[in-house]
Amino acid sequence: MPKHSRRIDLTQVFEWREGSLRGIQDYLAAEEPLEIRVHGTPLSVTMRTPGHDLELVAGFLLTEGIVQHREEIASMEEEARGNAEADSNVVHVELAGRNFEPERMRRNFFAASSCGVCGKTSIESIRVRGIQPPNPDFRFDPCLLCTLPDKLRSAQAIFGRTGGLHAAALFSCEGELIVAREDIGRHNAVDKVIGWALREKRLPLSKCALLVSGRGGFEIVQKALVAGIPVLASVSAPSGLAVRLARELGLTLVGFLRGQRFLIYSREDRLAPVPPVTGK
Amino acid sequence: MPKHSRRIDLTQVFEWREGSLRGIQDYLAAEEPLEIRVHGTPLSVTMRTPGHDLELVAGFLLTEGIVQHREEIASMEEEARGNAEADSNVVHVELAGRNFEPERMRRNFFAASSCGVCGKTSIESIRVRGIQPPNPDFRFDPCLLCTLPDKLRSAQAIFGRTGGLHAAALFSCEGELIVAREDIGRHNAVDKVIGWALREKRLPLSKCALLVSGRGGFEIVQKALVAGIPVLASVSAPSGLAVRLARELGLTLVGFLRGQRFLIYSREDRLAPVPPVTGK
Repeated sequence: MPKHSRRIDLTQVFEWREGSLRGIQDYLAAEEPLEIRVHGTPLSVTMRTPGHDLELVAGFLLTEGIVQHREEIASMEEEARGNAEADSNVVHVELAGRNFEPERMRRNFFAASSCGVCGKTSIESIRVRGIQPPNPDFRFDPCLLCTLPDKLRSAQAIFGRTGGLHAAALFSCEGELIVAREDIGRHNAVDKVIGWALREKRLPLSKCALLVSGRGGFEIVQKALVAGIPVLASVSAPSGLAVRLARELGLTLVGFLRGQRFLIYSREDRLAPVPPVTGK
Repeated sequence: MPKHSRRIDLTQVFEWREGSLRGIQDYLAAEEPLEIRVHGTPLSVTMRTPGHDLELVAGFLLTEGIVQHREEIASMEEEARGNAEADSNVVHVELAGRNFEPERMRRNFFAASSCGVCGKTSIESIRVRGIQPPNPDFRFDPCLLCTLPDKLRSAQAIFGRTGGLHAAALFSCEGELIVAREDIGRHNAVDKVIGWALREKRLPLSKCALLVSGRGGFEIVQKALVAGIPVLASVSAPSGLAVRLARELGLTLVGFLRGQRFLIYSREDRLAPVPPVTGK
């Protein structure tokens, strides 16, 4: 099996297009945690697409100011895995000289959580937090879902002028926009929306759909689950890890929501068209 | 001055379009660090767009598992600033009860650097690292610059299939693609490219342009500067902080590179059209 294959997951999804649903195969970009250990001490965990890991570590050490020159990296080694087919998710670094102070590094990095994935090394860490599957009975009309991106764009105050902001918005099952927030960081836009709901005593958000303007990554899925949101939609692609977590915990995950078409990666039952009222 | 104004910076930039350059005003999304302190202990620094900060903090505390219920947040307060016009960049949190263990939190968060901005609270922290302005004599032909996005797309092995990956690529001043890398994280794609150069003994990259597929954020500008790259281009918008850092350290920063048009946010002199050879 070529290493390359680990960077893409092939999976079964549903395509909704103009009212009909069909199963198709879809490719997902892989997303896995990489832990960097320096002299045996964990320095950083980053969610990355496997491949070129030693380059990633070397670049990280340089651009984060831990080394200034190539010669300061005495060695980098991927930790062996039991499974020969899999790459390692841990890289061991030895620095030349004795100038590495883990405590100073910890001070520099401990505060860091700008991605929301920080400190979490895998789905396991989500599991141990005891997050419950969201509302199984919630339903959202797929035709209504297709109208949400336009509603979000109308609500974006800053994006229209700068083109540079991510947005997240909560919608009721009638398609009404409840709250929208923008931020340079997608995870921050989601945190603002959920923080609004927390302060307004609206948690859990078991009767809401969350729409995000960019990718539906692992950290967004995790945040939606913590808030009890049953349907998460994005206009772009989710990662493989995001899909695994959504499937494991029963979140309805939608991607590529554009025009009259989207993909459903998990729990498509919540997007069943509302049955026509009969017998009346 | 309304608070809203702090979320957008208006700045003077240059627009290059089909060979001509003109000055225009452009709006930038603001990006500033927000530090969260719990019981006086710094817990997290995140780069965010100012506004709705208490919602951001509340959402962060919940989705990162620090609190489970609203009642566990006894108080949140923005630190007063000397300048009444400015919002605060520090929020103080008091949790109800005695169950907050900073050391446990530090273990959860210290390892975190998935955004590259982690642990840096401002441009000051870049300054103290003594990063030098990049090569002042480097020039890049603006018509050639317009051809780079197509070259990068051709080189993207995974994106075409998944739609979910960021890419970064180095180009020579002749427009030749030197190396391209993809990752679920834009900062990781840049780290992989720079790490490749470090390992190949090609640093500093004083005769290269770096193209990234998404936004040119603060962390990307910082990484480019560490590697000595003089020209950074992106197909989308930079943040206000990215522009400030680029201007301060003399990086040529290009945004919205699409078709035969782009914006130049700093050091437009490096994009002077190559003068025609005369007198032959």
